[in-house]
Amino acid sequence: MTDGPHVPHIVIVGGGFAGLDASRALAREPVRVTLVDRHNHHVFQPLLYQVATAGLSPGDIASPIRWILRRQANLRVLLATVERVDPAAKCLHLDGGQTLAYDALILATGVTHSYFGHDDWQPRAPGLKTLDDALEIRKRVLLAFEKAERETDPARQRRLLTFVIVGGGPTGVELAGALAEIARQALRSEFDNVDPASARILLLEAGPSILTTFPDSLRASARRSLTRLGVQVREGTAVTSIDEGGVMLGGERIEADTVLWAAGVQASSLGRCFGTELDRAGRVVVEPDLSVPGFPDVFIAGDLASFTHQTGRPLPGVAQAAKQLGRHAARNAVRRLSGEPTRPFRYLDPGNLATIGRNAAIADFGFLRLSGYLGWLFWVFLHIFFLIGFRNRASVMLQWAISYVTYQRSVRLITHDD
Amino acid sequence: MTDGPHVPHIVIVGGGFAGLDASRALAREPVRVTLVDRHNHHVFQPLLYQVATAGLSPGDIASPIRWILRRQANLRVLLATVERVDPAAKCLHLDGGQTLAYDALILATGVTHSYFGHDDWQPRAPGLKTLDDALEIRKRVLLAFEKAERETDPARQRRLLTFVIVGGGPTGVELAGALAEIARQALRSEFDNVDPASARILLLEAGPSILTTFPDSLRASARRSLTRLGVQVREGTAVTSIDEGGVMLGGERIEADTVLWAAGVQASSLGRCFGTELDRAGRVVVEPDLSVPGFPDVFIAGDLASFTHQTGRPLPGVAQAAKQLGRHAARNAVRRLSGEPTRPFRYLDPGNLATIGRNAAIADFGFLRLSGYLGWLFWVFLHIFFLIGFRNRASVMLQWAISYVTYQRSVRLITHDD
Repeated sequence: MTDGPHVPHIVIVGGGFAGLDASRALAREPVRVTLVDRHNHHVFQPLLYQVATAGLSPGDIASPIRWILRRQANLRVLLATVERVDPAAKCLHLDGGQTLAYDALILATGVTHSYFGHDDWQPRAPGLKTLDDALEIRKRVLLAFEKAERETDPARQRRLLTFVIVGGGPTGVELAGALAEIARQALRSEFDNVDPASARILLLEAGPSILTTFPDSLRASARRSLTRLGVQVREGTAVTSIDEGGVMLGGERIEADTVLWAAGVQASSLGRCFGTELDRAGRVVVEPDLSVPGFPDVFIAGDLASFTHQTGRPLPGVAQAAKQLGRHAARNAVRRLSGEPTRPFRYLDPGNLATIGRNAAIADFGFLRLSGYLGWLFWVFLHIFFLIGFRNRASVMLQWAISYVTYQRSVRLITHDD
Repeated sequence: MTDGPHVPHIVIVGGGFAGLDASRALAREPVRVTLVDRHNHHVFQPLLYQVATAGLSPGDIASPIRWILRRQANLRVLLATVERVDPAAKCLHLDGGQTLAYDALILATGVTHSYFGHDDWQPRAPGLKTLDDALEIRKRVLLAFEKAERETDPARQRRLLTFVIVGGGPTGVELAGALAEIARQALRSEFDNVDPASARILLLEAGPSILTTFPDSLRASARRSLTRLGVQVREGTAVTSIDEGGVMLGGERIEADTVLWAAGVQASSLGRCFGTELDRAGRVVVEPDLSVPGFPDVFIAGDLASFTHQTGRPLPGVAQAAKQLGRHAARNAVRRLSGEPTRPFRYLDPGNLATIGRNAAIADFGFLRLSGYLGWLFWVFLHIFFLIGFRNRASVMLQWAISYVTYQRSVRLITHDD
């Protein structure tokens, strides 16, 4: 890196937690950095369910990537879709026919929903990964109550007021808790023909338990909090089909107009460009230093990486893991470009959090386990602290303070007209 | 209204300023009220341009109609599209085949854009009436800068960075001022291949002057403020065609990828259901008491009314006029139902306001004319004061305070993926 005017070029694909932290880790390195994303904004994913449930505005949890990284002189941001990686030619093919050459590549394009081979379920049961997903879910939930108000047939009304959430991970649990609050509190006494509080909210988990990454005691606490909010939690219950108007659970049918998908993930298809081993979800199985086997200039970070060298299992798909992976991939890319040996990655687990409506959350930090109100306070504090940008922190604090006092979820706007 | 158990039913169509104020005026009257709107939210129209220019979130200027009117016991809200009024049968035909009977009707469905017979211009030059319009404009403006950053051809880059606003009324002026601020300040130093400050912003007005409803001295002040922001103001300049890539002004061509329409309005088509006289824009020419000639049970309020009895010209299409019309129509509807004589409407002109970027606005209250910084402070104060809902007021105050200090427009999100 010192021989002449050529400054090595590191390309990072994906502006999520991994891509942003990789970018920042390169701020003072003697490299040129290009960050490519197909959206112009970074989304604070842990609060996406709040946009889907009308508690926060998209602008509260998302910021333009350009703005976040505006002070980083060696970096440029490109709004583009990467269609293919050509690791032999060391370049990316972008939409519009452009190409982008790299000396080292950090791929952090994450995961999307997986319908386990039933892609036809997607229009019936949207998942929650992007701001547009969140706005779509918000629209469906709010429209269901509006349609129920106009409906005269009691069976159809019942179906409109039944909400099924498939998948009992943190996203499913948080969605279920927030939906229950909307129905029981925010919409209370605003309708004439229906009682929103009569809405039925089901959380279905195919595995033996919700929140499998948490210890037993905290799971039990989460189950109790959900039940208190009126959510029916059904574990060991697999969805066998989804159609217009309901879901089938083996022989049982549940009539429901709104079905939300929080069950499975599949990796971004860019991981397939190397012809190397992928795990079941399509994640790239990486070397201990996060590089792709056989391609020492390419590093995988964030949810796209299947890193099993530490525990035998992949890392959890949480923000903290993505950030650590991003930073490590960036440092190894610099080492690689300067001819130094790369170093193996080690994940430091900071703990695990999930929230269930207002006032209840569970937190597991190994040495410390919190649940109920204390867990919730902790959750609120951490999420405001990690939000990007002073404006977002101030705005979210204000919205939450007002919502907490008024029980309102005031971003109840049906937009995205068809 | 006292003979027996029949409580008369007043239907209000449209949840804008006129419809909301009509609803509220009926809160203590012995009537049943149904408010029908095709959106679930009321939009504070005077700040819609701020959503279009990424200064505020949709949730900051819009509130669910149900929530606004939640305490009004004699009123119900219906999310529905009115397809037709049948004044002979005294009922409305809604989407989905339902009908809704009324004893008295207040129609306040407003106006939309008019392209003066060139409806093919619409996809090329979106107008600004709804939240979805605002999000579409925001997307186009932000994408133009992003595309320019990727563009290598200087001519195409120039075209991407040229923004044409057609129509020099308050909306056009406010859009132009805000766009100039985005280019000169908010995006400054975030791009590498282009300088956002080099963007060209043209405000075209076909008539002899921008802001025709303001006195000469304030117009001159507005022109100066716009020029200082770098907006090219061209009066007496009519657009003769709009195509992919530019506009024609007679023989002159301006290459521009982004064209915004703020020029003309046409009334909601529901006004045609009575077979009575309409004005050139399709507004219903009303009696002095705001009723439709020949249909004494039907009143027109808001922008849909062509009320010329006071000055010989229609009222201005501003919030204050809509609110006064709404309240008066509601009171006359009650008088009509109780067999009392209705009263003629009189508009009390509270004044006129327009803002041009940060720090400058013009205000005309007859006895008092403000411009520059003082006008702007007044504008800020009034707009926060009239916003609906404590949450919105608090949030907008916070956003504006932060933006004022940082020069940022932080809701710069490109959503609504196709």
